[in-house]
Amino acid sequence: MRIPFNQPYLTGNEQKYMLRALESRKHCGNHEWGMKCIALMKEMCGFGEVFLTPSGTAALEMGAMLAGLDFGDEVIMPSYTFSSTANAVVLQGAKPVFCEISPDTMNIDPDRIEELITDRTKMILPIDYAGIPCDLKKIKDIAGRHNLTVMVDAAQSFYSQDQDGKFCGSNVPLAAFSFHETKNLGCGEGGALIVNRSDWVERAHFLQEKGTDRRLVLDGVKSKYGWVDKGSSFLLSDILAAVLYAQLEHVEEIVALRKKVIRAYRELYTPYEKAGCLRIPHPPSNVTLNNHAFFVIFDTSEHRQMFLSQLRERQVSAYIGYVPLHSFTKGLQMGYKPDDLPITEDLANRVVRLPLYTDLANEGLGYALDSMRNVLKGLYGS
Amino acid sequence: MRIPFNQPYLTGNEQKYMLRALESRKHCGNHEWGMKCIALMKEMCGFGEVFLTPSGTAALEMGAMLAGLDFGDEVIMPSYTFSSTANAVVLQGAKPVFCEISPDTMNIDPDRIEELITDRTKMILPIDYAGIPCDLKKIKDIAGRHNLTVMVDAAQSFYSQDQDGKFCGSNVPLAAFSFHETKNLGCGEGGALIVNRSDWVERAHFLQEKGTDRRLVLDGVKSKYGWVDKGSSFLLSDILAAVLYAQLEHVEEIVALRKKVIRAYRELYTPYEKAGCLRIPHPPSNVTLNNHAFFVIFDTSEHRQMFLSQLRERQVSAYIGYVPLHSFTKGLQMGYKPDDLPITEDLANRVVRLPLYTDLANEGLGYALDSMRNVLKGLYGS
Repeated sequence: MRIPFNQPYLTGNEQKYMLRALESRKHCGNHEWGMKCIALMKEMCGFGEVFLTPSGTAALEMGAMLAGLDFGDEVIMPSYTFSSTANAVVLQGAKPVFCEISPDTMNIDPDRIEELITDRTKMILPIDYAGIPCDLKKIKDIAGRHNLTVMVDAAQSFYSQDQDGKFCGSNVPLAAFSFHETKNLGCGEGGALIVNRSDWVERAHFLQEKGTDRRLVLDGVKSKYGWVDKGSSFLLSDILAAVLYAQLEHVEEIVALRKKVIRAYRELYTPYEKAGCLRIPHPPSNVTLNNHAFFVIFDTSEHRQMFLSQLRERQVSAYIGYVPLHSFTKGLQMGYKPDDLPITEDLANRVVRLPLYTDLANEGLGYALDSMRNVLKGLYGS
Repeated sequence: MRIPFNQPYLTGNEQKYMLRALESRKHCGNHEWGMKCIALMKEMCGFGEVFLTPSGTAALEMGAMLAGLDFGDEVIMPSYTFSSTANAVVLQGAKPVFCEISPDTMNIDPDRIEELITDRTKMILPIDYAGIPCDLKKIKDIAGRHNLTVMVDAAQSFYSQDQDGKFCGSNVPLAAFSFHETKNLGCGEGGALIVNRSDWVERAHFLQEKGTDRRLVLDGVKSKYGWVDKGSSFLLSDILAAVLYAQLEHVEEIVALRKKVIRAYRELYTPYEKAGCLRIPHPPSNVTLNNHAFFVIFDTSEHRQMFLSQLRERQVSAYIGYVPLHSFTKGLQMGYKPDDLPITEDLANRVVRLPLYTDLANEGLGYALDSMRNVLKGLYGS
C-alpha cells in the first residue's frame, strides 16, 4: 500500500457543475458559479465581501495592495510560513519582519510581536498554520494600539472557528484563503480574498479588474471604464468556481472525515508526548478546527530524519514542513541570520507534517497508523 | 436575432479532456495537460520555453519581473492598450512611457519610439492589436542599438506570423499570450509567458513557483526547496490546461472560420474606405493574421456614436475599443494630458471593434452584415 502526503477529494458534483459552466459559455471570472460560491461562503461564514482569485498567493497580493502597502513599509509575520506570505509584501516594495512562533500551534507568538514594531510597521500578517486559528484576540489588540492593519494568511483555515466562535476570515479586516488542490477544499488552483472593511470594497473591485473601474460600468454608474489604479487579473475562471462550489457544498462532510484522521493521529502520538519523546499540536481549547493538517515535533532532528526515512520505506509520505524564510537564500540576502529566530529554527528542524487528506479516513488510515506505530516503536521503544 | 460582441468557441473535446484532468486528481499547475499544452505550443510555434499562467495579465507581470524591471525604470508602450500592459510595469515600481500609434494597425508607431528613450529606459513593450503583429523588425533594431529588452503583449496574437514568417512570440525575448474567453483560444482565464532567452529560464521557474527553487527539487538537483526570489503563483490549473489543449488542437479551424468573418467585413467596408468615409486595418502585406479582431476608424466620432447606437438597436454589439491609458484617471495622475498623444486620442475617439467570434462564421454573419450595411447606408448613403 502507498499513502501519499496529499490527494484531492471529489464530492461527486464537480463533473456536473463544471460541464454546466463550460456549456454556459461564460468561462471567465465572476460569472454564475463564482457568484454562487461567493453567496454561499458569505452565508456559511459571515464574511463581509468575497473576491475569488486565481490562488491563495494572488489573494495575499490583492490584500497587500488593498491595504495600501508601499515602498519601505514593514509587515510583521512569522518566518515559519510559505514564501507567498512574504512575497505578497515584497511585491509592494514593503519589507517582511519575521517573528518567532509558538510550539503549541506553530503560529506566530503574539507576545513577541510588539518588540518588532517600528515607525514603519503597517501590518501584522499572521498565518493559521495547519488550520489552527492564530491568536487573533491578542494580535488585534496590538494592532489597535499601534494603528496597524491585520491580514490573516488563512490559506489553510477555511471553516475553522476562532476563540470568539467566528469563522476564520470573518473577524479581521483582510483574510486570504487558498483552494489549491492540497487544501481541504480545492479547485486545482484558486483562492479568495475576504474584505470585511466596507470602505475598501469598491477599490477591491478595481484591483481585481486589472485596475479598471469596470465594476462601475457593470453597476450602471458609468458608461465607459478605464485605468484608475494598479491591479491585476485577480479572477477565478467560472469553470474552477464550479468545482469549488461542489466542494463548498460538502464542507461539513470533508471536515468530519478529516477529523477521524486527526483523532487517530492524536491517539497514537499522545502517549509518546506524555513520555517526553515528541510534541503534538495544542490549539486553544475554545477554537474549532477544520482538521486541515497534523504535525509532530520530534525531540531531535535526527529522530525526525529517521522517522521520515523509515516511513518512506513503508511507502508512507510525510513532509518536513516549511523551510523558515529568514534562514533560506532570500532571507539571508535580507540580512537575517539563522540565529535571529532560534525558536523557529529549532522547531522547523524537528517538525513533521503527517499525511492528511479526506479520503484517508476511508482508505489507508489503518496502514498509515500501523506504519507509524512500528517506526515509533523502533525509535522510542513501545 | 442577437449578435454578441464575443462568444467562446467549443471544439468538442473540452469536456472529455477536462473530465480526465479532474479524475487524474492532479489539478494544480504544470501537470499532464499543462505539459501537453506546452509541448504542443513549442512544436507548433517554435517557442523557446512556455510558462502557462492564470491570465495574460499574470504573464505580463511575470515577464516584467523576469526582465528585472525595478523602481524608476521606464518602459515604452502604446497608450492604446489594456490597463494590464501598464500595470505589469507599475507593479515593479517602473514607469510606463506612452508612445503614439499608427492608424494602419493601431499598433505602436516604431518611428516615434526613439524620441522617448532616456537613461532610465529598460524595455519596449509593444502590443499586437487585433492580432496584427507589431513592427518587430524596427522595434528590435531600436532595442538593439539602445541595449533595451523587448517584451510583446501578444494577448491577441497567438498563431499570427510576423514579417519574418515567424509565429508571434517566437521572435522576441519575452511575449505574453492571453487565453481569456474573449480570445481566439480560451480556457476561461489563462495565459502564457514565452521565454526565448535560455539564460532566463531557470529564474522563470522560480518566479512561477512563488519565488522558490522547487524546480531544482523536482529536477533532483536539491533535496529541499525554499525562498530564493520574489515571485507569485504564476500557474494554470490542469483543469483549465485541459480545456486549452482542446482549443490548441483546433487552432487552424478556428483561424479559418474567423477568416471568413474578416473577409466579409473587409468586403463590406472597403468601398466606404475608398470613398473616404472610414479606414480599415492595413497590416503589412507579409504578415499572416490569426483573424482575432477587426476594427473600423470612422471619419468622425459622431459617426462612430451613430454607428454604435444604430447597431445596438438592431441587437448587434460592437465596441469602442480601449480608452487610452494616458488620458484616463491613472494616466492623468501620472501627469499626462490628453493632448500629449493627439494621434492616439483622435483615433481612439473614432475607432470601433466589430463583433467577432469563431461561431459567427457559422451563424449570424449574414444578419450582422445586413445590419451594418443598413446603418452605413444611413450614415454615408449607398
